Amino acid sequence: MATNRSPEIRKDAVHNRWVIFSPARARRPSDYKSKHDPKTKTQTECPFCAGHEHECAPEIFRFPPESTSDWKIRVIQNLYPALSRQLDPPLDTEFGAGPVTVPGFGFHDVVIDSPAHPVHLTDLSPPQLADVLLTYKKRIDQLRAIDSVKYVQVFKNHGASAGASMSHSHSQIMALPIIPPTASARIDSTKEYFAQTGKCGVCQVRKDDLLIDQSSHFISVVPFAATYPFEIWIIPRDHSSHFHDLDNDKAVDLGGLLKLTLAKMCLQLNEPPYNLMIHSAPLRIDSTQLPFTHWFIQIVPQLTTVGGFELATGCYINPVLPEDAAKVLREVIIP
Amino acid sequence: MATNRSPEIRKDAVHNRWVIFSPARARRPSDYKSKHDPKTKTQTECPFCAGHEHECAPEIFRFPPESTSDWKIRVIQNLYPALSRQLDPPLDTEFGAGPVTVPGFGFHDVVIDSPAHPVHLTDLSPPQLADVLLTYKKRIDQLRAIDSVKYVQVFKNHGASAGASMSHSHSQIMALPIIPPTASARIDSTKEYFAQTGKCGVCQVRKDDLLIDQSSHFISVVPFAATYPFEIWIIPRDHSSHFHDLDNDKAVDLGGLLKLTLAKMCLQLNEPPYNLMIHSAPLRIDSTQLPFTHWFIQIVPQLTTVGGFELATGCYINPVLPEDAAKVLREVIIP
Ligand SMILES: Nc1ncnc2c1ncn2[C@@H]1O[C@H](COP(=O)(O)OP(=O)(O)O[C@H]2O[C@H](CO)[C@@H](O)[C@H](O)[C@H]2O)[C@@H](O)[C@H]1O
Ligand SMILES: Nc1ncnc2c1ncn2[C@@H]1O[C@H](COP(=O)(O)OP(=O)(O)O[C@H]2O[C@H](CO)[C@@H](O)[C@H](O)[C@H]2O)[C@@H](O)[C@H]1O
Repeated sequence: MATNRSPEIRKDAVHNRWVIFSPARARRPSDYKSKHDPKTKTQTECPFCAGHEHECAPEIFRFPPESTSDWKIRVIQNLYPALSRQLDPPLDTEFGAGPVTVPGFGFHDVVIDSPAHPVHLTDLSPPQLADVLLTYKKRIDQLRAIDSVKYVQVFKNHGASAGASMSHSHSQIMALPIIPPTASARIDSTKEYFAQTGKCGVCQVRKDDLLIDQSSHFISVVPFAATYPFEIWIIPRDHSSHFHDLDNDKAVDLGGLLKLTLAKMCLQLNEPPYNLMIHSAPLRIDSTQLPFTHWFIQIVPQLTTVGGFELATGCYINPVLPEDAAKVLREVIIP
Repeated sequence: MATNRSPEIRKDAVHNRWVIFSPARARRPSDYKSKHDPKTKTQTECPFCAGHEHECAPEIFRFPPESTSDWKIRVIQNLYPALSRQLDPPLDTEFGAGPVTVPGFGFHDVVIDSPAHPVHLTDLSPPQLADVLLTYKKRIDQLRAIDSVKYVQVFKNHGASAGASMSHSHSQIMALPIIPPTASARIDSTKEYFAQTGKCGVCQVRKDDLLIDQSSHFISVVPFAATYPFEIWIIPRDHSSHFHDLDNDKAVDLGGLLKLTLAKMCLQLNEPPYNLMIHSAPLRIDSTQLPFTHWFIQIVPQLTTVGGFELATGCYINPVLPEDAAKVLREVIIP
């Protein structure tokens, strides 16, 4: 199969669904012995470790900026990028009805959270976590300066059952030339809710029996209609559309709540594989859209395997009621 | 946690997404030793085997109808149903904006494809596969007579990585009081395409380089914007909105193509776990919607684990181009 072809983004006329085709991705390595045991590590050093920088795709920046061998965080290009920064961005006119193919333009970066192989997010202190969050922000600020970038997705895969192919703690940042379906659906839905109630749907996330914890500026909750068992959202208490508006003080506060939340989840659910995702508003919204867009972090422990019902319908079956999950997590005591 | 509570269907105000909460589901057994090896079977007999009928939830019907111990197919209630037939169906007025909870009314059945534990779908002959397909049709005909049933989803999970908790070959049929998101998205999308081109988007699925095989009445293809590597659709060649319009002759023809398609996929991809799903139009569409609704079968081998990008955006990354997958499958020779 041709693995050297450029990525393409295709839409089919049946589901109105965009799919990124990236033949180069088929070549990426996996350092997990088994795709299925999140704890299996076949090595204690890897290309993401300090001292192995030359085994990685080019660096974009590091933190602290002036550091040499003593870096804390690195942002690098993905060696097997799903999208290519070399292609021409698609024109708005290319997005018609029917089957469509546009060039797979975009950016696909990796954030190495720590120089040391065995360190996980939960091992970092709140200020160190704040540095990771502020690194995301800095890279988003660079990407949103590019006109054809419509949306930036930050996400983390932890453990093989959460999709990770590298075990060294890292996150990924993808800059897209389209607004992805989930972000459009969210804005449509919160807009409708705002039109009917004058309120932001995320501000309204019920706080009483769904609350896990709170800090000065954030709350952690199990959402009212959680798609997955023990799904968690961390939401800024003050209405705010974009993650990249995070300031240094709030980043440290968020680092503390994130550490607590992950620690509780890991203790209660026995170190599950998980995905962490930042949901922010599309980059170029206008001021009328600010009142009903509100960023938040979604954390999904991977506890079950979805089946044909979910794939077919887009409707999920969750055996755990959110208020039960919230109560359990609220009561976890960190030793 | 309370596992005796009735199921609920909740919608959140943020994603406009329905989730079925079913505490009873947490209790269902799994006869897979490891969730991750599709071939591990811990037993050679189970409640779905002939002679174990008393270990199952009540039977709805069997095929042949008059058979006793020599049945070929049984339709039974799911012992751990995600939805309950005992609840009051939700009223249309209950589906407002904002967070919503409606009773988890619906039907959740299991179709046991064969009385023998080790038999898989690919072991059945085309007429035997036709009997399975006609059993789905018969049950759908019963369910669609119920006014509050809006959509019926037929699906099969094969192998633990495809979500299956029982290894004995079976399918599931769920009757829903709502039209699920994928079905609505499909009808919106094909309606728009029809408005612009006067054509049905499914009839137009490109046949040349995407074709795998064809029979008198069906084609098998890799869809133009396949979400998953080696995803396959089996589509009736003549425009037809509902699976339940399948007649006996076409069922045997479809049985043949289904057997060939599954055999090729299993040979090429080394017996992968897979999901098989029937996508049909909502039950109560009007005649104006017939021209742009077209049923088909979707088969998804489970080869990769999705990660945070897909969960977050609803946008998928597929490393295998559909024309490459189609070529490989087209050329598989069944010994
Ligand atoms: N030396 C090097 N230098 C730079 N980059 C390197 C590198 N070696 C490897 N990489 C990159 O590092 C990334 C590691 O990412 P993850 O472990 O989070 O999962 P991956 O992206 O492989 O796939 C998971 O996440 C994606 C997105 O959600 C899903 O499509 C997929 O199915 C799932 O397995 C890979 O994207 C890889 O290309
Ligand atoms: N004695 C008995 N009599 C009658 N019924 C019995 C029974 N013993 C077990 N069952 C039922 O048989 C079914 C077997 O179904 P599958 O193996 O296809 O997967 P399951 O529904 O468990 O979950 C997979 O599919 C669902 C739907 O896609 C996903 O929600 C889930 O995450 C995934 O693991 C179960 O639903 C179970 O409740």
